[in-house]
Amino acid sequence: MDIDKITVPTLILNREIAVSNINRMVEKCTATGIRPRPHFKTHQSVIVGEWFRDAGVSSIAVSSTAMASYFADAGWKDITIAFPYNPREHARLEELSKRATINLTIPSIDSARILTGKARSEFNIMIKIDTGYNRAGLLWSETSLVNEIIDIISTNGYLKISGLLTHAGNTYKAERPEDVIQIYNESAGRLASLRNRLSRKELILSVGDTPSASLVNDFGEVDELRPGNFVFNDLMQFSAGVCSLDDIAVAMACPVVDSRPWNGTVVIYGGAVHLSKEYITRKGVNIYGLAVKLDNNGWTFFDRPLYVTSLSQEHGIINIPDNCSERFRPGDIVGVLPVHSCLTANLAGGYLITDGTFADHMNKKTEIP
Amino acid sequence: MDIDKITVPTLILNREIAVSNINRMVEKCTATGIRPRPHFKTHQSVIVGEWFRDAGVSSIAVSSTAMASYFADAGWKDITIAFPYNPREHARLEELSKRATINLTIPSIDSARILTGKARSEFNIMIKIDTGYNRAGLLWSETSLVNEIIDIISTNGYLKISGLLTHAGNTYKAERPEDVIQIYNESAGRLASLRNRLSRKELILSVGDTPSASLVNDFGEVDELRPGNFVFNDLMQFSAGVCSLDDIAVAMACPVVDSRPWNGTVVIYGGAVHLSKEYITRKGVNIYGLAVKLDNNGWTFFDRPLYVTSLSQEHGIINIPDNCSERFRPGDIVGVLPVHSCLTANLAGGYLITDGTFADHMNKKTEIP
Repeated sequence: MDIDKITVPTLILNREIAVSNINRMVEKCTATGIRPRPHFKTHQSVIVGEWFRDAGVSSIAVSSTAMASYFADAGWKDITIAFPYNPREHARLEELSKRATINLTIPSIDSARILTGKARSEFNIMIKIDTGYNRAGLLWSETSLVNEIIDIISTNGYLKISGLLTHAGNTYKAERPEDVIQIYNESAGRLASLRNRLSRKELILSVGDTPSASLVNDFGEVDELRPGNFVFNDLMQFSAGVCSLDDIAVAMACPVVDSRPWNGTVVIYGGAVHLSKEYITRKGVNIYGLAVKLDNNGWTFFDRPLYVTSLSQEHGIINIPDNCSERFRPGDIVGVLPVHSCLTANLAGGYLITDGTFADHMNKKTEIP
Repeated sequence: MDIDKITVPTLILNREIAVSNINRMVEKCTATGIRPRPHFKTHQSVIVGEWFRDAGVSSIAVSSTAMASYFADAGWKDITIAFPYNPREHARLEELSKRATINLTIPSIDSARILTGKARSEFNIMIKIDTGYNRAGLLWSETSLVNEIIDIISTNGYLKISGLLTHAGNTYKAERPEDVIQIYNESAGRLASLRNRLSRKELILSVGDTPSASLVNDFGEVDELRPGNFVFNDLMQFSAGVCSLDDIAVAMACPVVDSRPWNGTVVIYGGAVHLSKEYITRKGVNIYGLAVKLDNNGWTFFDRPLYVTSLSQEHGIINIPDNCSERFRPGDIVGVLPVHSCLTANLAGGYLITDGTFADHMNKKTEIP
């Protein structure tokens, strides 16, 4: 790529790093006999999706009906909408089920009843189980409620119960790798124990979150993994010990627009509408990104960490420590590794790949200038 | 509008409230002899822009070159890009200056030199002054540096020095209205004092932030006001005493997808990619939005405050207190007043107006379903 041609905040995607992240995860699944079902909400890109296909992936997860439709259009035939069934989109789901195998997520008796009343096309059903994250779905201990859902769903011949699905999102709050592994073992153990107590034992167990998918090696009785973030990684994963800085595959290229050496700051064109307001905290300071040196092949690291410490709508502020010899001037460009790559990619609406080509994103706003 | 037709998170815009917010601000400017130059980064909508035009506004501020181009296409002829000059977009700015009067913001000697070397079209120049917010621009005390910028700019006949521009964004952190007024007086006083010390005294003074524009009545020597957020307002402004809840003009309509009464929570389709991760804190709890009852005319308030207390990419969690009799079921729809309406509107990419029509947003992703 030619970074001299970048004029506005542009999300750079290092293909080698992303492909290496993909291959590592797929190989881990293959080695342990687990089906990879990567969550495509992180990249939302048909082109990045092809890199998964090249690695042998044929099953995917998405977080919305529109995203399922986007990937069905690109030829994906086995799609789990890993978000609670939204009755208001039922008509769109019926249309979608004619183009791909759609696996819906049912989190409650109420949802099971509504879907059972409406479904006139084939859907596979994953029952959403809460194994401790405490966000959505039925508690893993509620055996009879889950059996009741199975009974309700079974009354509609278009619907097939496929499995139990959980997301142990509490791993994102773990501060140490050993805590991630412990949360995984507890969550997967609860899911397996629920399956053993149910009237139907042939259900698959589907779990998914990047921290555990990255750090765990023994997945127990689980049949399917749905991590998403790992394709890009980010500072949040790095800071939790889930990846190295070298595993982060995206950086926002940001023009420098003001330099204030008396204040120890540099102002970049790159704000909340480019990076998102997600942050991590280091020594009491909120951090919205890590600055990196851009070149035509990608990026390298500065001698010391230069953090984005403040964001407004379009402005970002990089803090420059006293002992830093780096100089930034208006017209320069600097990269920023994001705190949460899913949200940053969602805002970017497209990628400039380090080989100079572009990758799509379903939120395409305008062409990348 | 017909809320039964809403299937996915959709930003509802109450036209009456927005127009009332616009008229109140314009009348205040007219009464005090100040030019209103509303910041269009909040709504980014040609249609909402027309409501300003109806109120007599002819000068606007924007936060990017692309936004300036978008509004120039809609016939706006006096546009301040209230963001530090980005040399990498210079060619686009030259093209733009043929279609509208473009006022650029110059924050430093470096930027002044670069622009002076490049400019071959007419631009008005606002010098960006830091009166205490500490984000960008030259310190208000640096008289000789500001005079030096004036001298540099004056060497290029295409460039005309118009004024001094500041943004006292520290008003957004004020917790009491009286603090907002004090920050305004200090900031405007510093800007006026700088003008008095400069070699050129005919420069206009331009200030802008919603808290002070809403709460201050005596604007001193200031010539121009650039507030943006006031058109919609939000929970952040309400919580700082800047507006009432009745002045908030946008609510995100969110389908209910799961209800967990044992847990005191409801799961909505409405997450960080719809509302943004901006939050306020109440009694130690992070709040990402306030739930409201939607109807076909807009929204009303629940008997007690029901807050969105957690957001992931697509999920939002509303906390339901023990003493709350409200029941939510999958298939229902609930409104959410955003914490920061600029970021929410930026994510929404369009508006459903309460009269049933749609308003554009420059980040149009797809048609509103």
